Amino acid sequence: MSGNTFGRIFRLTTFGESHGPALGGVVDGCPAGIPLTEAMIQVELDRRKPGGSPTSTTRKEPDLVRLLSGVFEGRTTGTPIGFLIENTCQRSKDYDVLKDVFRPGHGDMTYQAKYGIRDHLGGGRSSARETVSRVAGGAVAQELLAASGIRVAASCVELGGIAVADVDHDGAVARPFFAAADAVVPAWEARVREVMAAGDSLGGVVEVVATGVPAGLGEPVFDKLDARLAGALMGVGAVKGVEIGAGFAAARLTGSHNNDPLVPPGAALATNNAGGILGGISCGWPIVVRAAVKPIPSIAISQSTIDTGGAPAAITVGGRHDRSAIPRIVPVLKAMVLLTLADFLLLQRRMSGQP
Amino acid sequence: MSGNTFGRIFRLTTFGESHGPALGGVVDGCPAGIPLTEAMIQVELDRRKPGGSPTSTTRKEPDLVRLLSGVFEGRTTGTPIGFLIENTCQRSKDYDVLKDVFRPGHGDMTYQAKYGIRDHLGGGRSSARETVSRVAGGAVAQELLAASGIRVAASCVELGGIAVADVDHDGAVARPFFAAADAVVPAWEARVREVMAAGDSLGGVVEVVATGVPAGLGEPVFDKLDARLAGALMGVGAVKGVEIGAGFAAARLTGSHNNDPLVPPGAALATNNAGGILGGISCGWPIVVRAAVKPIPSIAISQSTIDTGGAPAAITVGGRHDRSAIPRIVPVLKAMVLLTLADFLLLQRRMSGQP
Amino acid sequence: MSGNTFGRIFRLTTFGESHGPALGGVVDGCPAGIPLTEAMIQVELDRRKPGGSPTSTTRKEPDLVRLLSGVFEGRTTGTPIGFLIENTCQRSKDYDVLKDVFRPGHGDMTYQAKYGIRDHLGGGRSSARETVSRVAGGAVAQELLAASGIRVAASCVELGGIAVADVDHDGAVARPFFAAADAVVPAWEARVREVMAAGDSLGGVVEVVATGVPAGLGEPVFDKLDARLAGALMGVGAVKGVEIGAGFAAARLTGSHNNDPLVPPGAALATNNAGGILGGISCGWPIVVRAAVKPIPSIAISQSTIDTGGAPAAITVGGRHDRSAIPRIVPVLKAMVLLTLADFLLLQRRMSGQP
Amino acid sequence: MSGNTFGRIFRLTTFGESHGPALGGVVDGCPAGIPLTEAMIQVELDRRKPGGSPTSTTRKEPDLVRLLSGVFEGRTTGTPIGFLIENTCQRSKDYDVLKDVFRPGHGDMTYQAKYGIRDHLGGGRSSARETVSRVAGGAVAQELLAASGIRVAASCVELGGIAVADVDHDGAVARPFFAAADAVVPAWEARVREVMAAGDSLGGVVEVVATGVPAGLGEPVFDKLDARLAGALMGVGAVKGVEIGAGFAAARLTGSHNNDPLVPPGAALATNNAGGILGGISCGWPIVVRAAVKPIPSIAISQSTIDTGGAPAAITVGGRHDRSAIPRIVPVLKAMVLLTLADFLLLQRRMSGQP
Repeated sequence: MSGNTFGRIFRLTTFGESHGPALGGVVDGCPAGIPLTEAMIQVELDRRKPGGSPTSTTRKEPDLVRLLSGVFEGRTTGTPIGFLIENTCQRSKDYDVLKDVFRPGHGDMTYQAKYGIRDHLGGGRSSARETVSRVAGGAVAQELLAASGIRVAASCVELGGIAVADVDHDGAVARPFFAAADAVVPAWEARVREVMAAGDSLGGVVEVVATGVPAGLGEPVFDKLDARLAGALMGVGAVKGVEIGAGFAAARLTGSHNNDPLVPPGAALATNNAGGILGGISCGWPIVVRAAVKPIPSIAISQSTIDTGGAPAAITVGGRHDRSAIPRIVPVLKAMVLLTLADFLLLQRRMSGQP
Repeated sequence: MSGNTFGRIFRLTTFGESHGPALGGVVDGCPAGIPLTEAMIQVELDRRKPGGSPTSTTRKEPDLVRLLSGVFEGRTTGTPIGFLIENTCQRSKDYDVLKDVFRPGHGDMTYQAKYGIRDHLGGGRSSARETVSRVAGGAVAQELLAASGIRVAASCVELGGIAVADVDHDGAVARPFFAAADAVVPAWEARVREVMAAGDSLGGVVEVVATGVPAGLGEPVFDKLDARLAGALMGVGAVKGVEIGAGFAAARLTGSHNNDPLVPPGAALATNNAGGILGGISCGWPIVVRAAVKPIPSIAISQSTIDTGGAPAAITVGGRHDRSAIPRIVPVLKAMVLLTLADFLLLQRRMSGQP
Repeated sequence: MSGNTFGRIFRLTTFGESHGPALGGVVDGCPAGIPLTEAMIQVELDRRKPGGSPTSTTRKEPDLVRLLSGVFEGRTTGTPIGFLIENTCQRSKDYDVLKDVFRPGHGDMTYQAKYGIRDHLGGGRSSARETVSRVAGGAVAQELLAASGIRVAASCVELGGIAVADVDHDGAVARPFFAAADAVVPAWEARVREVMAAGDSLGGVVEVVATGVPAGLGEPVFDKLDARLAGALMGVGAVKGVEIGAGFAAARLTGSHNNDPLVPPGAALATNNAGGILGGISCGWPIVVRAAVKPIPSIAISQSTIDTGGAPAAITVGGRHDRSAIPRIVPVLKAMVLLTLADFLLLQRRMSGQP
Repeated sequence: MSGNTFGRIFRLTTFGESHGPALGGVVDGCPAGIPLTEAMIQVELDRRKPGGSPTSTTRKEPDLVRLLSGVFEGRTTGTPIGFLIENTCQRSKDYDVLKDVFRPGHGDMTYQAKYGIRDHLGGGRSSARETVSRVAGGAVAQELLAASGIRVAASCVELGGIAVADVDHDGAVARPFFAAADAVVPAWEARVREVMAAGDSLGGVVEVVATGVPAGLGEPVFDKLDARLAGALMGVGAVKGVEIGAGFAAARLTGSHNNDPLVPPGAALATNNAGGILGGISCGWPIVVRAAVKPIPSIAISQSTIDTGGAPAAITVGGRHDRSAIPRIVPVLKAMVLLTLADFLLLQRRMSGQP
């Protein structure tokens, strides 16, 4: 109830602070018989690791996952899957300066207001470091979905205001920034250099696509598939907007241009402005969602702020921070879509067919 | 679990089809002692009623609410609040044509895929008519929030691609389209006439603002306030995008422009790009969310579609339909923000202070 | 979250006070395609109606149910099933005396402590009258379970300290007190006359048996089938104890006597001390639960109590009360078992088979 | 949803198998500012450890707890509290015999039916070893409750059919079997020797009492305090019955004998047949619950059973098993009451007072 559990049937509960002993979580509700190994999870964690990109922190976090339960002889047993990622890099002294002052754009002020107490080391629980557990949980969901022919891909379609022209998710995993196209990479690299030189940071847009999703997933009226996807993505730190299919552009079209003609099963779609969801339920078409990612608030430029007593102060955030949440947020957003779909798939299974 | 309940502490469960005997719901978790009458709810229902706008259906739905429980001598008792809205206008013959063909842009196809059975009369449960229960529930939440000094306003900030320049929520209730400014109304009226003449439909953008929200609402990491707001709004039919504060625009700013300087308590904010939420928790600033509303899919223009057997077909949707979900969706989106905030307010109450 | 919703997948939410306008509820999560009519529900409501027994109140409550949604052409559609039972008999003046004094053994004192406000008319929400909605919801569950070959029966196995020797659930519906045997009825009738003559009340034990339940229902470790059944029955007013299979008697056996030998599929069971549940999961054997029902606290004998100001007072409760919760509680306890099994059946469906 | 989470506001999620790498859990929803150390939890774990009783297994399980998150400088921060208990004693070869045969009275058969796969080593997840995580979670709840003046005690009131005459919970922690009186201990020891000599096992009854519980806890109608307590205790392996206050004995009393006279605040209670709960809500009186514990099903006597193929077989269970779940189940049952009360305390906090 305090927000650290995601899902209703396929459920991920996570814990852990940036500079505490360890992070981890529990996946409850995964059916028995799914192949699962630590290596399957590690692949996804490695994509989120720092160091893979010019925008990324230089901190070393090996993020090795350890499976603690729920797997027997290489397959899930239906019991809860506990996993652990030990923290190894904890240069906590970097954060002494944050004990008495709130960083703009961070949760420092609001955590203090909410709890009256705050672990200021690296942001504690509000650090993006918590997303390591989301990626681990998403990797479990990925195996469940794969067994049903569902595949999820994610890539960056815009960075620092420069958008990709022709989106190609398939090659994204191998590209810098998990870019949705090769052509855009040099422009993005130039933009990043420019912004970093100024001590500033930048944002972008990430797109996630799911294919092979059967028609019928989603629970009207409050738990529509798009509603849950929106909540899943907006709940990732730095995300400030979410859209499905044509999204905000749909608001500017007329009905005759926005409606996707329905086609016989197997025929090619003319358009997918719906993003694969009608009436809150999957159509059997590709599901397309996009998230707006704000620039990292930690910048090496002096900003006006207040201290914990409410008095004016100035702050310049040093340390080994990412310069953009992209690309490291890409596998996190993918994980949230995986977790959402796994949950709806299991929910639907019980409603379909005759009783 | 099947999606007809919203909230965790302050919970609304709804039922009802477009052309069934009645719609209604149950509000569970409302604290005792809140003033509540049928008239308080009726005010909000009347704002959602057809007939108040050039874009609106000519159907007559008086939508009179009846309170069935949970209130004693004008105040809530802490027990569940049941309410009922009888259906009175059921020209079901209009819908015979929909029995065997799927409308593009509607949930017809997906409901059939999900349930294998479908009430095709006016869309059944997938009709926007279900939102009458959301508005009734939101009206209860409004009284609870008012007792804590929280106020929510909503208005239309863009219609048919024409945006409002200076948003003024205060006067919106009295304006056509619940417009966020007087000046835009003539242009919107012209645009509506033009689109209606073509048998087409249009969409827009709605903004909801909450003031008086205390710092500390929101439950990290999965139930952040912005995550739940996004899910609440995206779950309303026709919404295809949601953004908080600067939203998608934030993705194009650098950190130094996007960060809102923190100011001492009581001082005026320089900017509110965060939309009043940091780290998923309210800051004490106004909360600002926007929803992209797609054009109504029912249009008087022939469209390609398929019948229930999967064969190609054409459809032209007649009947007394709205030509835009705006303005009738405005009180619905407001209701969803009210419900979300009421839930978080009660959730937070248990965590604050010393045990 | 405030306790008026039961179940996780197959969910019943109820509302209504003893002397308010109406009672009712919403069943959410019932799969599509189940046959359902008002008559199917009315049969069960009629078994709970007053007047069928010497212990019963003389109030007239026709308790006619009206289906408001979720059913189309005689079958469920997968959307929420709203139902309503109007209150028709409201001799509220009988209850003026209860405004300022708390009845021993009732929830008067605790509702006042919890909510600070109280609908004293007939006990308001704390009245056993709320169980009419449970029975209606259970009747829906019964149709779902019947479609899977599951059948639930309930009967009274002990009244006023006199136990039934040979339990026979099959004929119970037709017997006075829903007695589990014919032979015990004269002794029970004599006991009831004796106790009523003294202005006193009595209790008993009800047994519920479910047959046709497949092996595999129940979710370890916290949502075991027996755990949920215990909660379901203990949550009915007047129930003070619950046991599964041999129950408290098992605590006095040694392992060699308590263990049920496992037998090949299809072979007859030697014993069923487990009550059909091992490790919290159904075995495929009959499920047997018993509930201890306390005597009705409303008695025509003067009792010591306190008034709402905390001062000592005396009270003699007149009015048209039942003299025992038996037999009217029997269909209620049956309904709770039906609701519990329907929920677990749907939960299990998603976990079984290969993904 | 798969049963490994307990509670709604104060939530414990657990994981771990008998012979896997580790067990552990996450407490989510604990308010900030509660003093918490590993030592506070270890005290309770040590009470559950084997070796403290003649009935107990000779396995060595140090069960050292490690806190992984949610605590900063000795106090809770409001973020999830992860904890871990490594498994150190894993003589898995003892269990090879169980791969192909089902033990009577255990969950072997039902886990196989439910999941189609089974970790047979020491019972896997169905082992009582999972309760170590419950005790750890309960220890956190205990600190929260202590800060509100609530105290929970538990002791054994019956063993092998021999009941305690005068229950004294205060000294129980120091007595063999956590007995509720000194006088009964020799008789119990004799009974245990007798049963063990025969290779058999025994059961008993445990009572848990909570004092200092304020009036007003419990959520009618489905989440009554007694309903949730019953579910909490019945969900512990080996429990087959639960009663509140007078329990099954109440079913044999008349109303005039069962009703507890209400007394002015501060006055002594004449009786507490209600067990401190009326209408499902706490009265402010001591809360008294009892659980019937069946004899351990693992016995050194040959029993009839079936193998995994359904064919008849015989089994004699060797190994280092407890001979009774008592006394090790006593701290587990106490933990479940602690967890239940912590959850209701936080639930109630939001409802009380004016909004």
